[in-house]
Amino acid sequence: MAGNIFGTAFRITTYGESHGHSIGVIIDGCPAGLNLSSADIQVDLDRRRPGQSAIVTQRKEGDKVQILSGVFDGKTTGTPIALQILNTNAKSKDYSHIKDKYRPSHADYTYDQKYGIRDYRGGGRSSARETAARVAAGAIAKKILEKEGIVLYAHVSAVGAVKLLKSDVKNRSIIELNEIRCANAERAEEMIALIREIRKQGDTIGGTIECVLEQVPAGLGQPVFDRLEADLAKAMLSINACKGFELGSGFEGTLMRGSAHNDAFYRDASGQIQTDTNYSGGIQGGISNGMPVEFRVAFKPVATLMQDQQSVDSKGEQVTVTGKGRHDPCVLPRAVPIVEAMAACVFADHILRSRLDRA
Amino acid sequence: MAGNIFGTAFRITTYGESHGHSIGVIIDGCPAGLNLSSADIQVDLDRRRPGQSAIVTQRKEGDKVQILSGVFDGKTTGTPIALQILNTNAKSKDYSHIKDKYRPSHADYTYDQKYGIRDYRGGGRSSARETAARVAAGAIAKKILEKEGIVLYAHVSAVGAVKLLKSDVKNRSIIELNEIRCANAERAEEMIALIREIRKQGDTIGGTIECVLEQVPAGLGQPVFDRLEADLAKAMLSINACKGFELGSGFEGTLMRGSAHNDAFYRDASGQIQTDTNYSGGIQGGISNGMPVEFRVAFKPVATLMQDQQSVDSKGEQVTVTGKGRHDPCVLPRAVPIVEAMAACVFADHILRSRLDRA
Amino acid sequence: MAGNIFGTAFRITTYGESHGHSIGVIIDGCPAGLNLSSADIQVDLDRRRPGQSAIVTQRKEGDKVQILSGVFDGKTTGTPIALQILNTNAKSKDYSHIKDKYRPSHADYTYDQKYGIRDYRGGGRSSARETAARVAAGAIAKKILEKEGIVLYAHVSAVGAVKLLKSDVKNRSIIELNEIRCANAERAEEMIALIREIRKQGDTIGGTIECVLEQVPAGLGQPVFDRLEADLAKAMLSINACKGFELGSGFEGTLMRGSAHNDAFYRDASGQIQTDTNYSGGIQGGISNGMPVEFRVAFKPVATLMQDQQSVDSKGEQVTVTGKGRHDPCVLPRAVPIVEAMAACVFADHILRSRLDRA
Amino acid sequence: MAGNIFGTAFRITTYGESHGHSIGVIIDGCPAGLNLSSADIQVDLDRRRPGQSAIVTQRKEGDKVQILSGVFDGKTTGTPIALQILNTNAKSKDYSHIKDKYRPSHADYTYDQKYGIRDYRGGGRSSARETAARVAAGAIAKKILEKEGIVLYAHVSAVGAVKLLKSDVKNRSIIELNEIRCANAERAEEMIALIREIRKQGDTIGGTIECVLEQVPAGLGQPVFDRLEADLAKAMLSINACKGFELGSGFEGTLMRGSAHNDAFYRDASGQIQTDTNYSGGIQGGISNGMPVEFRVAFKPVATLMQDQQSVDSKGEQVTVTGKGRHDPCVLPRAVPIVEAMAACVFADHILRSRLDRA
Repeated sequence: MAGNIFGTAFRITTYGESHGHSIGVIIDGCPAGLNLSSADIQVDLDRRRPGQSAIVTQRKEGDKVQILSGVFDGKTTGTPIALQILNTNAKSKDYSHIKDKYRPSHADYTYDQKYGIRDYRGGGRSSARETAARVAAGAIAKKILEKEGIVLYAHVSAVGAVKLLKSDVKNRSIIELNEIRCANAERAEEMIALIREIRKQGDTIGGTIECVLEQVPAGLGQPVFDRLEADLAKAMLSINACKGFELGSGFEGTLMRGSAHNDAFYRDASGQIQTDTNYSGGIQGGISNGMPVEFRVAFKPVATLMQDQQSVDSKGEQVTVTGKGRHDPCVLPRAVPIVEAMAACVFADHILRSRLDRA
Repeated sequence: MAGNIFGTAFRITTYGESHGHSIGVIIDGCPAGLNLSSADIQVDLDRRRPGQSAIVTQRKEGDKVQILSGVFDGKTTGTPIALQILNTNAKSKDYSHIKDKYRPSHADYTYDQKYGIRDYRGGGRSSARETAARVAAGAIAKKILEKEGIVLYAHVSAVGAVKLLKSDVKNRSIIELNEIRCANAERAEEMIALIREIRKQGDTIGGTIECVLEQVPAGLGQPVFDRLEADLAKAMLSINACKGFELGSGFEGTLMRGSAHNDAFYRDASGQIQTDTNYSGGIQGGISNGMPVEFRVAFKPVATLMQDQQSVDSKGEQVTVTGKGRHDPCVLPRAVPIVEAMAACVFADHILRSRLDRA
Repeated sequence: MAGNIFGTAFRITTYGESHGHSIGVIIDGCPAGLNLSSADIQVDLDRRRPGQSAIVTQRKEGDKVQILSGVFDGKTTGTPIALQILNTNAKSKDYSHIKDKYRPSHADYTYDQKYGIRDYRGGGRSSARETAARVAAGAIAKKILEKEGIVLYAHVSAVGAVKLLKSDVKNRSIIELNEIRCANAERAEEMIALIREIRKQGDTIGGTIECVLEQVPAGLGQPVFDRLEADLAKAMLSINACKGFELGSGFEGTLMRGSAHNDAFYRDASGQIQTDTNYSGGIQGGISNGMPVEFRVAFKPVATLMQDQQSVDSKGEQVTVTGKGRHDPCVLPRAVPIVEAMAACVFADHILRSRLDRA
Repeated sequence: MAGNIFGTAFRITTYGESHGHSIGVIIDGCPAGLNLSSADIQVDLDRRRPGQSAIVTQRKEGDKVQILSGVFDGKTTGTPIALQILNTNAKSKDYSHIKDKYRPSHADYTYDQKYGIRDYRGGGRSSARETAARVAAGAIAKKILEKEGIVLYAHVSAVGAVKLLKSDVKNRSIIELNEIRCANAERAEEMIALIREIRKQGDTIGGTIECVLEQVPAGLGQPVFDRLEADLAKAMLSINACKGFELGSGFEGTLMRGSAHNDAFYRDASGQIQTDTNYSGGIQGGISNGMPVEFRVAFKPVATLMQDQQSVDSKGEQVTVTGKGRHDPCVLPRAVPIVEAMAACVFADHILRSRLDRA
């Protein structure tokens, strides 16, 4: 049983290999009556696109999205929405040298073990190019969040050891103004400087992305298994290179006492029940409590290096994997819209699902 | 759309509130022909049971499991296996004082917001008692792992700041011999001492559990969404009090360079392809690579304190939540079998699913 | 991958063998806030129960349902509702003679072929006793239909060649007043007479059940695959002994010209759009159109006879299957509540799903 | 919750409107290693295509399929297979006259009621053009059946009152040699003559299609809900214009006595257990028993007439729907490959699912 369908009420099915005809997605379950144009989707694809700044890969991919169905007179019709992005710049020649080689910490070996066959061109289905389909679907999911009044953003909170401090002010409006997509200008500069240094070495670096959803209505999430944080965790860990997820206080919260960690309820001036701290990260018992949902996602350093590496080929013979091509020294800035897209899909799903909570 | 069904091929559906008639689970998709008795299940329930040691809650719950269906002549028949655990020791009186109060960092408020009604006795459905059904199901899942030759264990790797060091030797055989279920005797003692100290203060503490699966066949996991680590992350974040998940190098891996982080392939003496390091945590491209699968799970400090706390009631009025009852100062030792159970369910699911990979 | 879960938004998972501890069901997805007591469920179980009249099996089964979870203070809470019916009257001895024999047109042979093991006591999982769990779940589904204003009923429209004529008046109020559950008193008498005759011969007979849903809102059904009639057809063909399903004009409609078959739209006095005929059976393009939904279900003659039959055993040796026990000469009157229950589950599912149609 | 995904292990997700960019399907769950080319798919599309004979619509649609993903070096890779058919001949002008009119027994009214918006061009999503995506997916499913040794065919068994008699010899090899796709040459001629007569009158006619699967292994089907016949019934009733489904003896079987209807088991010369009759239609207890699976599907007369009809528009005003365009007087010959495709999808699904039956 394959696993290329995500979501329950807002369901996305993706297809496509890095160097095939195209990649795409069918969204089944988008409600009728939403305004939608390809421009709404293109804006996020452009944020994920290679070549957009000096610190990411210089590959050129147009990544133009086309809406094939499900939209009529500028509105969604309730029928499946198919989106397609042609692979205009596929260069199969670039990858022939890795046909039989297992690149370290890539999926070459595991795909071969699993399926006995593998489209080796550009990593095939295991290429991060696949995430473009997610970003496209996520742009539609965001429409559902907007309608609900939810504000969603993500930004790079750490690159290697350069990390946002608790005292650092986060300014959402500058995220798209710096190449690394960090909400703090000073840290952004340090991060960019670090990435440049790493790139010179032909090396790569990881980091973390923080994602925040504000003005979330209380009541989203479906215990006991489809808790909001459980579905978010799955969504994040399904992204290439992701190695960790934490909600609210996360791993650091394990160091606290319960008396300090508990978020005390109070009624604010407007009569709304809130909590004075938010170590819960906006979710209690698997259900949103109205506070901001905050989580962080860990990305490992990119596995493709500009250095030679020792490995084995499909016969188990020792080989050298040569570093070449056009790759990202750090995946983080381009991963920001991917994290947003997957978070949006999870929230769209749970917004719809919550409509069935009460008789 | 509710969320009390977990898994795809090995599917579990749980029911039950803390103080209702019983809790239970139906497992749909357990293959026919496995040897199974209630004793196989009871052993894990006894590890999760309250009152088993001095550092956990002293509540008495028998937690006797009964197999209602799906087993005949000591073997699974391929039909649904229903398991039931009676709530013999429910004391509704204990909880009447919290009927209208929202306990801090519990699910009282969110359940009310979501459903407009809530079984407040002992936390109802949001009680961790629900996890007994998971442990029962997990015991059956473990049978499928065993048949595949997979070895699974979990242990407490940190309580608060007391943490297993990289240099600490892990001895699997001692895990069940100390009250905290830690694989290192020295750390175990420190952890137990810390919990005792915390309990005296009427406070609570969190920690992390490490889970390891050895002798995992390569090829488990279903990209792009149902990656093995994505399903594990969901499984873990669906457990009460869980705040984080990390695979292999996890959050620390974000500090490394790609050249150090990549796991180099080599062929061992027996001709088997392996990696010399395992920062990947046994999963590459969402698919197991044959190396041990290793992940860690963060648990926040227990929200129920033996201290008074300020909160609000269902009308938004300020109230005091009084600390009383019989609760765990630290959930970790009892969470070990829960982590194992959910991991076993994910692996059983993916073992079965992988049977369909090839024509 | 097993198949004991039915429905998408209103999901039921059943378990249980004929002669095991109990049979039961977990309903996941029943909205919170519905009034519900076990008496609401018992009324339908009593209609399905053996021994209720002279023309059905005289086995005694109490079939008392117990609600184990999901209901608090007389209302559903949005959490899983578990229902259980104990098998109080199981007599394993009655069935030892068929342990290795394959009863003709039963599931003994196919279960053995599929699973390699079989609970042969009373037919095990393949026994129609399993449908009691469906009837119990259906009683809850009916609550959702009632809230929507939908009126649902089924009745026996044919037993063998004794068939409701087009000119026969259907009187819903007499269905429960005759032993065969037919809406026409005259035909009911003929049907009962026929069954008595058949029983004397130790033989059995089949027939058809007609099911009608009135005051159905337009808009239920999810093209292109989960059309309302597609889900109804699946629901019906999943019932033991069912061999056919037809909607509206059904198989007879294949004889008509399109010009006669098309249902002409008109606006009635109240401004409501209706059709002057209803060959469509209330569904067009997979979606309810506001007219009554009408379908018929074919049931084969019961396979268990009071006559000796030739067959083979598990080794392929020729054996005689002896007719004895307490069985139904005609399954139809007891199948009426089963057809209703499955129809109710499908409609409850689609009522909930339709809440997501529009933004 | 929308319904454009079909299947469990072999899952197809379709998209597309009659006059949009294209229609297509993503198949998730096709095992790796099957030989596959677009020619394998085109052959079935050509059988469904308009304009292939004198008795079907003369619209010209190329219906050229393109494989976009999931196939490499002529073999399936285990990743999603996306198929696309461009709508090259869409003529939006033809349909402007029905923009606000509700065609009798079409889905115009129900789509409007459900979604509040409707792509009216050529029927949009409700057009039977959607079934081309099913036929394409079914061609891949057939590969899985072939590998299992299953032989599948369908043919027209009745057009109006012209019906295959029990005494009529069925010759599978002539099905594709006559315009109506009937397995008996004499009946085929009568059917064709009838359709010609009907067409002259500007009218339409329905009929039945019989589908047979031979050399089916015992053990397919997943009780209690996902019985083989239940999934077949759903598959068939999900096809446009389908009004009924019957397995084996079907509705006629309701007239028989159990003693005549039961299929007696015997061991044949080769030691194989068989039944001497096949009123069960190859399925017992929801599971295939190794005998041929035989079912029939009822199709109503096509709703689009070449005659004027009275109806209402979206404001409820009375209007005349004028007959024009290029339509089928009888959908049956083109529905044969659709029935086959959906049957193939169900069987592919259950072949894969049955791999998980035993430990």
